[in-house]
Amino acid sequence: MRNIEICLSPELIHLHDLKGKTVVVVDIFRATSTMVAALGNGIKEIRTFASLEECKSMKAQGYLIAGERNGHKVNGFDLGNSPLTYLDGKYAGEKLAMTTTNGTLALSKSQDAEEILIGAFPNFSTTLDYLKSIDRDILVHCAGWKGRFNLEDSLYAGALTKGLEGTHQSEDDASLALKSLFEKEGNDLKKFLSQASHAKRLQNHNIEADIDFCLQEDSIDLIGKFEKGALTKF
Amino acid sequence: MRNIEICLSPELIHLHDLKGKTVVVVDIFRATSTMVAALGNGIKEIRTFASLEECKSMKAQGYLIAGERNGHKVNGFDLGNSPLTYLDGKYAGEKLAMTTTNGTLALSKSQDAEEILIGAFPNFSTTLDYLKSIDRDILVHCAGWKGRFNLEDSLYAGALTKGLEGTHQSEDDASLALKSLFEKEGNDLKKFLSQASHAKRLQNHNIEADIDFCLQEDSIDLIGKFEKGALTKF
Repeated sequence: MRNIEICLSPELIHLHDLKGKTVVVVDIFRATSTMVAALGNGIKEIRTFASLEECKSMKAQGYLIAGERNGHKVNGFDLGNSPLTYLDGKYAGEKLAMTTTNGTLALSKSQDAEEILIGAFPNFSTTLDYLKSIDRDILVHCAGWKGRFNLEDSLYAGALTKGLEGTHQSEDDASLALKSLFEKEGNDLKKFLSQASHAKRLQNHNIEADIDFCLQEDSIDLIGKFEKGALTKF
Repeated sequence: MRNIEICLSPELIHLHDLKGKTVVVVDIFRATSTMVAALGNGIKEIRTFASLEECKSMKAQGYLIAGERNGHKVNGFDLGNSPLTYLDGKYAGEKLAMTTTNGTLALSKSQDAEEILIGAFPNFSTTLDYLKSIDRDILVHCAGWKGRFNLEDSLYAGALTKGLEGTHQSEDDASLALKSLFEKEGNDLKKFLSQASHAKRLQNHNIEADIDFCLQEDSIDLIGKFEKGALTKF
């Protein structure tokens, strides 16, 4: 039996040993969901940046640049951060530079892993099947919110732990807790998450459709893999 | 409506604002449970120390010293760390110095709070009633295990959040998650915890009776308050 463990925040990742493991980085609202949407609709490569300035500088290298602050596309950027932007394939063939604070931090703090994937509900089953097929321990790295525990990333981690219970045992307390929480709340994630701080923030920005996309399982069939600083379809 | 929030580990406490709040420090296996047992059986005052050496030095000041490593009382110490030690009132009237790594860290990182209590299941309802009666926001500070999330401290935090839902709203994601988890698993904590890493460690030390004491609600009627470096009955 292989193992699965969960790190609840990038602030706790130093307590985990990443060596030899597959790390699944999760930032459900909305970084990793947007990445899956983009890769699933023809974007060839994604690079992430914590700051708007770094991201903007990628324009000169031929990247589409996506940047949003407080729910609005930033002046001078091509796109905001909505996953829905990519769904019609309009940007197929492009390379994308995007800003995300929590997601970028989690990715950069996962570099000691053997392999880094991104996790999101839209490609849940494809990722799950891949994880079952490889002979490696798994760590789910929740991006959280400014270092804190967050509900949507944690529920994804719980869903993955549940999905892997035939092949991966969970010995750490976080995976036991979140598997159980997902068993209780997984049948109506949207309702449960509507109480949560981050979902409330997103609702204030009128992005209900984004939330629906981010919580809908299996609309996109791909694995997103982060390697040498760039995310591509694997 | 007042607020309740949960900090899952001392490693995350810098993300929380403690000012003006009542902080409840929780280290179920076994520091705060042992403290409640000791105070409830006549111990006048408790001081905690991270190291055996510091703790031992308190002997010269007339303190009983309790120190345990790897499940065994340390040579030269009066007592181990079991809560059961105190139940017959044999040490009534004494002052106690005890070692605890996770609990000491959580207490020392709670100093910015308006008030610091210790939380444990044996004095659950007394503490709950007190928290309802005061006009203050609450932060539950889980001591965790070497910085990581731990199940027993988190379930206590969830139980408290559930118990306070008439007076205190939970806006942070951790309290929403743990309240829901307690709703699911709270009716058989021991069974759920038997899967957990820390409970497994304790079982290896043959301290099943300690676990039973630590998970049993309301055997002791007191509030434990930490003030000026010492814990006393409030």
